[in-house]
Amino acid sequence: MPIRTRALQKTAPDQPFRIAEIERRDPRPNDVVIAIKAAGICHSDIHTIRDEWGAAPFPLTVGHEIAGVVEAVGDAVTRHAVGDRVGVGCMVDSCGECEQCTADQEQDCLNGTVGTYASVDRDGTVTQGGYSEHVVVDERFVLRIPEGIELDVAAPLLCAGITLYSPIDRWGVGPGTKVAVVGLGGLGHMGVQLAAAKGAEVTVLSRSLSKADLAAELGAARTVATGEEGWAEAHRGEFDVILNTVSADLDLGMYLSTLKPHGAMVNVGLPPEPQQLSLGSLIGGGKVLAGSNIGGIRQTQEMLDFCAEHGIGAVIERIGVDDVDAAYDRVVDGDVRFRFVIDTATFAAATA
Amino acid sequence: MPIRTRALQKTAPDQPFRIAEIERRDPRPNDVVIAIKAAGICHSDIHTIRDEWGAAPFPLTVGHEIAGVVEAVGDAVTRHAVGDRVGVGCMVDSCGECEQCTADQEQDCLNGTVGTYASVDRDGTVTQGGYSEHVVVDERFVLRIPEGIELDVAAPLLCAGITLYSPIDRWGVGPGTKVAVVGLGGLGHMGVQLAAAKGAEVTVLSRSLSKADLAAELGAARTVATGEEGWAEAHRGEFDVILNTVSADLDLGMYLSTLKPHGAMVNVGLPPEPQQLSLGSLIGGGKVLAGSNIGGIRQTQEMLDFCAEHGIGAVIERIGVDDVDAAYDRVVDGDVRFRFVIDTATFAAATA
Repeated sequence: MPIRTRALQKTAPDQPFRIAEIERRDPRPNDVVIAIKAAGICHSDIHTIRDEWGAAPFPLTVGHEIAGVVEAVGDAVTRHAVGDRVGVGCMVDSCGECEQCTADQEQDCLNGTVGTYASVDRDGTVTQGGYSEHVVVDERFVLRIPEGIELDVAAPLLCAGITLYSPIDRWGVGPGTKVAVVGLGGLGHMGVQLAAAKGAEVTVLSRSLSKADLAAELGAARTVATGEEGWAEAHRGEFDVILNTVSADLDLGMYLSTLKPHGAMVNVGLPPEPQQLSLGSLIGGGKVLAGSNIGGIRQTQEMLDFCAEHGIGAVIERIGVDDVDAAYDRVVDGDVRFRFVIDTATFAAATA
Repeated sequence: MPIRTRALQKTAPDQPFRIAEIERRDPRPNDVVIAIKAAGICHSDIHTIRDEWGAAPFPLTVGHEIAGVVEAVGDAVTRHAVGDRVGVGCMVDSCGECEQCTADQEQDCLNGTVGTYASVDRDGTVTQGGYSEHVVVDERFVLRIPEGIELDVAAPLLCAGITLYSPIDRWGVGPGTKVAVVGLGGLGHMGVQLAAAKGAEVTVLSRSLSKADLAAELGAARTVATGEEGWAEAHRGEFDVILNTVSADLDLGMYLSTLKPHGAMVNVGLPPEPQQLSLGSLIGGGKVLAGSNIGGIRQTQEMLDFCAEHGIGAVIERIGVDDVDAAYDRVVDGDVRFRFVIDTATFAAATA
């Protein structure tokens, strides 16, 4: 029997959220039924459900930063048990057989990853996200949330956390390296904490110094105001890695000039327009401009364990299901320190 | 006493080459005096001496693909002896003490590499290149040319060879990898040979199929004509590494689409204008756009030894000192298979 559960749903891009009862599939042998406790609001949710990334399939529930407790498991489930604290991130299925899946890079599945929402699932239905009371997910895509991290603080790790952890790992951030984090929002505040915990010296590159105190609390050694003339010249050849979390147009050549030889600038934010790039800014010094897109399941678990070990979590503002429309506007305005997380206990008393 | 030697010199960008007698410095204790036998013509020579990269210091002798025989050594020289077959590439000095030099990345010396020509040397003089009968170089920047490679075939390895070998090494080209080489000129023909010798499957990406037979002889598995519609779709997600040797404008997004997830496109040719790049073409699949600039001395020696072991050399057309002006025009027209090398024995009978 399919499971009926409450969810925040939109029927069109310009409609407010409403509470609807939606169906989750009848659990298969490998499925885990999760009672969702906390769901983070990612900017991707907003882009998707406002049709800013193309026409979304409505009615739609978004949310891919999900934390909760296992309520039931299928007969064949071995990784998780009823009562376990678990999470789900940006994907809920992949082929499991291609060279990417077998290399623990399910996010790059050659046969197509199934996204947590707005994606066509194996059974032909459209996946519905985590702004909801329950979700049913194949155990391979369910993560363990270690003791020592609260569920609401853990939820944003499933997207924002892994999005930064993966390039930090790939590009060798660690003791003795100097890392710049461009932008101090939901992604950037995870980058600062993770890079600092890895032992790197972290510099926040932000338009102004208005968040310098926050950056320092998160572990940054300093904040540099990129709105001030001459900032790049003053930091020429300084950084091993730049983690660019902003989606705005940037003068890439200027940022690349602050890399050491062989350094890497990794982009996780997607500006809507193409950027201008002189290849000369990569050739001198053999520099790297890279992209990164979340990370695989094995690495996501490693990230959660790393966060628990180092006492790292997202810095969140907890909201109720009635507050999501207003929260979206605040995210777009950059008015959140640093991530909104929906408390699903508020479904019970909600008016939406 | 300074050494007087014949050289091909220009007194202005638009003048033809003439034979002049120039001075090489009185050898210091660490210096090697080289009787030059062969000097390759690199496109950089042309850009420099035609003032296409800014105002060059005239009168000027260019050439940074130098092969010859040791004629004398300073008292402190330990690496080379009279009679040794040796080469000099794009640089003749660096500080030797910074973190790049001590990491065998002298090309990225933080205190400034001294280029083989048109560069201000430690003593304040302007360096003069290899279109000449002699050169005096610090032994640290003199390479051994192994037995089994003729000097004229070895000369272009000192620039074109290391320019391709370095990214091939850094980005893991080897057995089981699929490599695309964009452009089959002086650089590209080295990329094909080196990548094939490393065990990779090599595809040449060229405007047309006109050089397909040449590509196959050099070790390419196939040539793909990028002038034909749909080529990128037909090779979507195929390559581990793309080595881009052309200096023309390219649709970077189209080339990046032919990379596997986590693949790297490395640029060694410098287009005069900035390129357009959508960062989305890097983020999906966590791809890399990189640059590469020659390589360090240790790696250059490794490359020469690798070439000797695998019977690899540049494919050259030997010319005399009277032919250089005409050769320049042919290089610009792409009319050379694949590198012109000046035979310095022709200085004796030259009319220039």
